Amino acid sequence: MVKNFLNLTQEECQREYDKLIFDYENFKSKNLKLDMSRGKPETRQLDLSLKMLDEVNSRSDFKTLGGIDLRNYGICDGLPEMKKFISSVTGVDEKYFIVGGNSSLSMMFDAISFFMIHGSREQKPWCKQEKIKFLCPAPGYDRHFSICEYFGIEMITVKMNKDGPDMDFVEDITKNDSSVKGIWCVPKYSNPQGIVYSDEVVKRFANLKPKAKDFKIFWDNAYFMHDLSSETETLTDILEECKKNRNEEMPIVFYSTSKITFPGAGVAFLACRGENLENLRKMYSIKTVGFDKINQIRHLKFLKNKSNLYNHMQKHREILKPKFELVLKLLESEFKDNPILKWNSPKGGYFISVDTCSGCAKETVRLCSEAGVILTKAGSTFPYGKDPYDTNIRLAPTYPNIKDLGLAVKLFCLCTKLAFLKKKLGLCN
Amino acid sequence: MVKNFLNLTQEECQREYDKLIFDYENFKSKNLKLDMSRGKPETRQLDLSLKMLDEVNSRSDFKTLGGIDLRNYGICDGLPEMKKFISSVTGVDEKYFIVGGNSSLSMMFDAISFFMIHGSREQKPWCKQEKIKFLCPAPGYDRHFSICEYFGIEMITVKMNKDGPDMDFVEDITKNDSSVKGIWCVPKYSNPQGIVYSDEVVKRFANLKPKAKDFKIFWDNAYFMHDLSSETETLTDILEECKKNRNEEMPIVFYSTSKITFPGAGVAFLACRGENLENLRKMYSIKTVGFDKINQIRHLKFLKNKSNLYNHMQKHREILKPKFELVLKLLESEFKDNPILKWNSPKGGYFISVDTCSGCAKETVRLCSEAGVILTKAGSTFPYGKDPYDTNIRLAPTYPNIKDLGLAVKLFCLCTKLAFLKKKLGLCN
Repeated sequence: MVKNFLNLTQEECQREYDKLIFDYENFKSKNLKLDMSRGKPETRQLDLSLKMLDEVNSRSDFKTLGGIDLRNYGICDGLPEMKKFISSVTGVDEKYFIVGGNSSLSMMFDAISFFMIHGSREQKPWCKQEKIKFLCPAPGYDRHFSICEYFGIEMITVKMNKDGPDMDFVEDITKNDSSVKGIWCVPKYSNPQGIVYSDEVVKRFANLKPKAKDFKIFWDNAYFMHDLSSETETLTDILEECKKNRNEEMPIVFYSTSKITFPGAGVAFLACRGENLENLRKMYSIKTVGFDKINQIRHLKFLKNKSNLYNHMQKHREILKPKFELVLKLLESEFKDNPILKWNSPKGGYFISVDTCSGCAKETVRLCSEAGVILTKAGSTFPYGKDPYDTNIRLAPTYPNIKDLGLAVKLFCLCTKLAFLKKKLGLCN
Repeated sequence: MVKNFLNLTQEECQREYDKLIFDYENFKSKNLKLDMSRGKPETRQLDLSLKMLDEVNSRSDFKTLGGIDLRNYGICDGLPEMKKFISSVTGVDEKYFIVGGNSSLSMMFDAISFFMIHGSREQKPWCKQEKIKFLCPAPGYDRHFSICEYFGIEMITVKMNKDGPDMDFVEDITKNDSSVKGIWCVPKYSNPQGIVYSDEVVKRFANLKPKAKDFKIFWDNAYFMHDLSSETETLTDILEECKKNRNEEMPIVFYSTSKITFPGAGVAFLACRGENLENLRKMYSIKTVGFDKINQIRHLKFLKNKSNLYNHMQKHREILKPKFELVLKLLESEFKDNPILKWNSPKGGYFISVDTCSGCAKETVRLCSEAGVILTKAGSTFPYGKDPYDTNIRLAPTYPNIKDLGLAVKLFCLCTKLAFLKKKLGLCN
């Protein structure tokens, strides 16, 4: 029978602790070595795209529709065929795309770098302005925050609601503070909470009236194809909505096949309109003589078309779904009647976000690590790595096999309880 | 019999012109459509690396020596095996390398971008300093100059001597002007002149005493393997020499396989030491979760080792050498006794650099273009696209087949003469 730890006396806490610490030592003796820290696909998922490597070989035809040899320099902003493909999948007109290299993160970095050096909409370059601030819905993606830190951009945490960032706050601060130049969004199956921005939230984004003329929305649609059920959640088209509201210079949208084919060798995409598109296209024409077009055609031949891509994602889902179900089942059985942990049940994406009681996340992660299970560093889902209440932990269930995952999550549940009890007993440093 | 145009009377000029313009119209009627503008490998060269595409396929082993799956995220600064390979070829210790994506130009851009945002050696970021200047040995590579223009870096032209840039000038200006922060070098088979920097020049570089503590040498060793004869020219190791002179923070060296395997799908490398290495490695760990390791291993399996790489380059040479010989033979036969054109005879690289008489380069290129042969834009070998005497033209003989090349060069010779005569006759606009 599950006890509700919130109701325990100090004495009961001690008794519970003594019992659990015994289980914990037991775990330690297993010498586990598991990594649940990053949103990495597992081997069977990588195997799903193996055949892609055979699509281009020494007997392939390397002429594009335009008669250009794919193996040579040129076509800096991507193969037209690849733009057609991503357009058919995303619904965004092909003319707004730049097809990049293997990393959408790099394209985000490049875009910010552009604004640092050149600015936009006749405003001073960001590096020449006194202070640049970005809004960071949190919990969020640590690599977005690292890019801000790199560029010396001050981060302001924005609360996440069930349907997206707290738009009252976003509207208010962008309207009043001209140093707020951007916001990071993972609008579909957000990292780590799996939240899908509602139609209303997207429309409020598109309708922002920022004081900064050069305000940008970084719309990292990393999980646009990563449903965990057979029904996809719909996400309103930010580019289209912004255009309607004469805000076409705000959004820059990013996609990637990293978690569709190979994380190290996928293809990244960027879509935007107007001046942004012109500027970023020009920037890439200076920065490179072209991205890897052979890898683009390899992807195109393998992924083929929208319906084939959906079939491919279904295979990913078949591998991932049981893992998410297992984690949720274990959390449910351990914490349903012991509300010292809260969690979300995502319909897509790569993570399960959990919240411990205040001040328990770091210790939970530490205890797990000491017993051989690496979790994402506590705090890393917040700007500067500082979770104000030390509660959020990002669980990444995709990489370990299901047996290891079960063990790891059992250990995690145990450590969550231990951390809570230690805090209550005053045993923490 | 070849006439020396320098000795012609006005009347003789007119007669010569009337004769040549007839030949020119004849050329025009051929409706040529040839491109000699960029240093692109031709199809047979691309075919040399076709087998590389078979090296990695669905039956490959994707574990690295370290047990990591190449298809997944990680190993941000490149496969250790790839570092070993490039080290064995270049003689630079593997520990100084970052293995990148498909574009060394991007890595140069990224490095400058880093110094713009962060600076180095405790100096202010370049974007916060009043003015940044770069030395640009010219004729040089237009894409280097474009990067400077992009970042708002003022360019100062440096004369090229037979053994490298004019080091008296370089020493003098770097010693006295603290806003001079960098220099672009293509030290082996320079673009476009094919000059190899002498040991003395490299040592003088290494021994610079720049007033700017944050002075950097961008050492773009693009043609390190691109000999046109079976004997390679030796180039002194700039990293080693700089280290000896306590200048290890100056040089950043770039290599690429773009013209070894595929221009669009090669592998780029960067080598540097000390703070530079630490900073750029950190920058990439923020900018990307890793470059394309599958393409790295594809290269490694195909290029194998130093001696195999030499064999491979020999095959390139067999295709390229006759083209260079043809161009040189035609230039020789047309201008040996008519010194209105001067040219170099490179021992490697991708170009033949020619100098027309003062004020004739643009018109020569224009005339060629009107008759269907595209040359590199006149002026583009100089900063801001401005050749002070309008003399230099970069011929890129690699891309056309040998028959087309012969035609194109004959037209070029004709246009050179026409442009000279037009100028002498006052027929230019």
